[in-house]
Amino acid sequence: MAKERLIYLPLGGAGEIGMNMYVYGYGHPGKERLIVVDAGVSFPDMDNTPGVKLIMADFDWLIERDTQVEAIFLTHGHLDHVGAIPFLAEYFDVPMYARPFSIKVAEARLLEHGVIGDNLQTINDPSKYIEAGPFSVRFLPISHSIPESSALVIDTPEGRIIHTGDFKIDQLPIIGDPFDPDAVEEESEVEVIALVCDSTNVLEDRNGRSESSISENILELITRCKGLVVATTFASHIARVYQFAKIAEQCQRSVLLLGNAIERMVGYAVETNVIPDLPNVVSLAQAKNIPRHKLLVLATGSQGEPRAATAQLARGTLFKGIQLKKGDTVIYSSKTIPGNEKLVGKIKNKFAALGVDIIDEPSNDYHVSGHPPQGDLEEIHQVINPNLIIPMHGEYRHLSTHAEVAQTNGFKSVIAPNGTMVNILTGSIIAEESFNPERIYLDGHFLIGSQNRVVLNRLKMARNGCVKVSLLLKGNVFRKNGLKIQALGLTDMGMKDLRKSIHKDIAQLVKTFHRRINSDDTEIVGKIEKITLRLTRSIFDKNPLIMVEIFQLDE
Amino acid sequence: MAKERLIYLPLGGAGEIGMNMYVYGYGHPGKERLIVVDAGVSFPDMDNTPGVKLIMADFDWLIERDTQVEAIFLTHGHLDHVGAIPFLAEYFDVPMYARPFSIKVAEARLLEHGVIGDNLQTINDPSKYIEAGPFSVRFLPISHSIPESSALVIDTPEGRIIHTGDFKIDQLPIIGDPFDPDAVEEESEVEVIALVCDSTNVLEDRNGRSESSISENILELITRCKGLVVATTFASHIARVYQFAKIAEQCQRSVLLLGNAIERMVGYAVETNVIPDLPNVVSLAQAKNIPRHKLLVLATGSQGEPRAATAQLARGTLFKGIQLKKGDTVIYSSKTIPGNEKLVGKIKNKFAALGVDIIDEPSNDYHVSGHPPQGDLEEIHQVINPNLIIPMHGEYRHLSTHAEVAQTNGFKSVIAPNGTMVNILTGSIIAEESFNPERIYLDGHFLIGSQNRVVLNRLKMARNGCVKVSLLLKGNVFRKNGLKIQALGLTDMGMKDLRKSIHKDIAQLVKTFHRRINSDDTEIVGKIEKITLRLTRSIFDKNPLIMVEIFQLDE
Repeated sequence: MAKERLIYLPLGGAGEIGMNMYVYGYGHPGKERLIVVDAGVSFPDMDNTPGVKLIMADFDWLIERDTQVEAIFLTHGHLDHVGAIPFLAEYFDVPMYARPFSIKVAEARLLEHGVIGDNLQTINDPSKYIEAGPFSVRFLPISHSIPESSALVIDTPEGRIIHTGDFKIDQLPIIGDPFDPDAVEEESEVEVIALVCDSTNVLEDRNGRSESSISENILELITRCKGLVVATTFASHIARVYQFAKIAEQCQRSVLLLGNAIERMVGYAVETNVIPDLPNVVSLAQAKNIPRHKLLVLATGSQGEPRAATAQLARGTLFKGIQLKKGDTVIYSSKTIPGNEKLVGKIKNKFAALGVDIIDEPSNDYHVSGHPPQGDLEEIHQVINPNLIIPMHGEYRHLSTHAEVAQTNGFKSVIAPNGTMVNILTGSIIAEESFNPERIYLDGHFLIGSQNRVVLNRLKMARNGCVKVSLLLKGNVFRKNGLKIQALGLTDMGMKDLRKSIHKDIAQLVKTFHRRINSDDTEIVGKIEKITLRLTRSIFDKNPLIMVEIFQLDE
Repeated sequence: MAKERLIYLPLGGAGEIGMNMYVYGYGHPGKERLIVVDAGVSFPDMDNTPGVKLIMADFDWLIERDTQVEAIFLTHGHLDHVGAIPFLAEYFDVPMYARPFSIKVAEARLLEHGVIGDNLQTINDPSKYIEAGPFSVRFLPISHSIPESSALVIDTPEGRIIHTGDFKIDQLPIIGDPFDPDAVEEESEVEVIALVCDSTNVLEDRNGRSESSISENILELITRCKGLVVATTFASHIARVYQFAKIAEQCQRSVLLLGNAIERMVGYAVETNVIPDLPNVVSLAQAKNIPRHKLLVLATGSQGEPRAATAQLARGTLFKGIQLKKGDTVIYSSKTIPGNEKLVGKIKNKFAALGVDIIDEPSNDYHVSGHPPQGDLEEIHQVINPNLIIPMHGEYRHLSTHAEVAQTNGFKSVIAPNGTMVNILTGSIIAEESFNPERIYLDGHFLIGSQNRVVLNRLKMARNGCVKVSLLLKGNVFRKNGLKIQALGLTDMGMKDLRKSIHKDIAQLVKTFHRRINSDDTEIVGKIEKITLRLTRSIFDKNPLIMVEIFQLDE
């Protein structure tokens, strides 16, 4: 039997920003005991995944090895790290470890999808090691844009791995765990055989900034504001929310939370003692009696989500008792995630039409990233000084740039996009066991593979519509009114012409067909499809999907 | 009869970036003689307009007044200013004036859409005034990111209007007309009653930069490159293309043009004497024999267009004899237009996977905007010193910020989004003649209104698919195999269940229907639609479009 080996296999997150899922394994080849780090989702768009609810990594590889899986570890509560938990929970009866705030988020996800989560295990003491087969794992608190983020210290029979999760180097993060270089250095006194490290912000070449670096800007800005102030940010960014609330207190403004997500997240933060409480918060009813220059609204919807509080406020009508007008200010304390620019722009135009002042991101004065730019990555590389650096979480370009940075500084590094199995000790790719993973879509009630034609058909109908042709035949003869044609997504202007042409060509086809036509006759269905497609192309310049139905009266 | 008046009416471009179309009129109310400035398109996206080819302003208002239209003026050759010419040419038999380079672009558009363009009139001498009813118009050369851009000096019986078109203040634009403050000042010696002015870049607060300001950066960059260099930019940006070609010459690199659009645009520029010739250009055949470090490829596709040269090169396979590899460099000499981020990102990831160095925009070292930032707008306001400033071309936020800038500096200004009729002399909005215009889509061969349900249906199918239900009845009784159900865009996993449930509910419905069911019975069709929708929701959690067809054998 071949020697034991230590492997790393990203299933999601290494090739995109989102849907993180990483596997570590130790044991005889093919018989490794496995742990999974993170189980995230990413979100659909109209260009590629219209109608899809959630996208996640394809975990078939894990399902095929379900008896080898020891545990799942969740580094933090962002949905791109915990959102797929309900779907994994149905396949793997193993403990799922997370710190209290992340547990709250995971529990809510399970509830939402009607899945029982009795495998969730709360890590109250992050210094404690958890045994998971041949692995011994501890949570190492690290700063990020959500409370209780953690790197993982993964001790294996071959040595120590540090998996950073998402993080930033922030020694003054307002709330939550500051980045502790001593703690990280201490963990690195043992030889670290691999650092698996966040890559999302590697293209940024300026230095990382602390969450607290924007406090003064925000204070100065709000002090200047004469009317109502609305600040919109990520609901789970409790440090930012807390920061705004504290500043509001300084400015003698009460705080109103607007949006379910932000209320929920603040609730989790209080329940788990991440913050003692949010100062100065008032209810909707109270807010109505507060003059607008004495109020700060913290609203969800910084990414242009059409139903979120920010979008509602942009309508200019009364929303939960709040109505914006000239002289008010909206602060975008957030970055627009690529792909959301148009949605966000639409909302900003609406605010402009109301005469509301818009303070947005290009200046970067009111938002800092939660991820390490290049300089901070180099710092963490130096502090940990691993034998191997595996760039994790990012598009290909982030991974490759991160690897280049590492190599330039003399570290060994390997680019391992989703589906690439790495032998951690040698730092080499195990090509014959690597593969090109697809994704899984949650589409309505069903999970479907991304290669399934369901979504491809929808995309085609989005561009070209569809045409339905129904025939009623007796033998090879049309019945009276025996051809009906309907279309969706094509203009009526061409339909009369289309119906007439199809009728003529199909009547001709049916008449000359040299055998009895059955309802399920694939040959004639194929021919009718071809005729319909050709004529729709010629009349409309469209390539619709075609549905053909034949009723045959001969019996 | 009411007094004559001078009006301004934007139909497109004032509320979005793209599809510019502005109307000026003079005469008795309702009987004004009209001129049209620009006839542009904008481009579809999957979020709102899947399958649409082009979007343009709704020019119904003009069609209803076609005998009042005197002429169409085209400020420059960008498609958001001339792209709709073939569609206007079919309705208005009036002269269409443009300078030679823009004429080339307009002619190509007409040819492409099979429209005869015998009304195109070339303006060889921009100092010449053109009489158009009560208007006397001249082209005032101004710098922008395409050759031969012009502002329009529009003399009316009430005084002079200056319509800037798109422009920037650039005294060293590499090729084409530099911004000439003396010429602009000279035109402004007469009282200018209104300045109608480009707003697209008003949110940018840094000063405008000259096209020539990036020459040294590009030279230095290309000098450093060891392998093949690909630069991608807008095909019509002849100054940029020329600049790259000149720098290539300095670096002893030959130039290969890759992409139809860039070849065509360079051809127009040479034909119209905008440039004498592009130095150093080689053919595909010649390029094959040139070592890669001696070649600069100028490629289309900076916006991520999936079929353009840049996307083809990113595949890493041989494209027209060129194949990129590690050590080569791709320069994005362009801005990513909002909405294109994901497409552009995809291509950059592919380049990264090839090991190609990507030099892109965030640094702004290799691209300058063709539009005036706030400081330059203030300068042009001062130079022209008009009685009224009407912000033109931009989203609402651009228009309103531009108006604010003007007002802050003591100018009168009015925000006039699409459909807003302005009395130019009073600077007031004529509310009762203003309206909320829709857009027109070119969808395949047909022009359809944006309120038409065709595209809405396609969007719905993109998210939810469609279900087709066909019945064969004799009286109120199903025939054998008399119910057929097909779906598109729904997973097979639920279809068996759906077919069974629909069959059961419709059989029940048909049986208890209290009168004879005809093929075109809208009541039963409505009921079947409801049943189908309810069951698809419950089984799939989807809201598809439903098509119902009934064949009735009773006769």
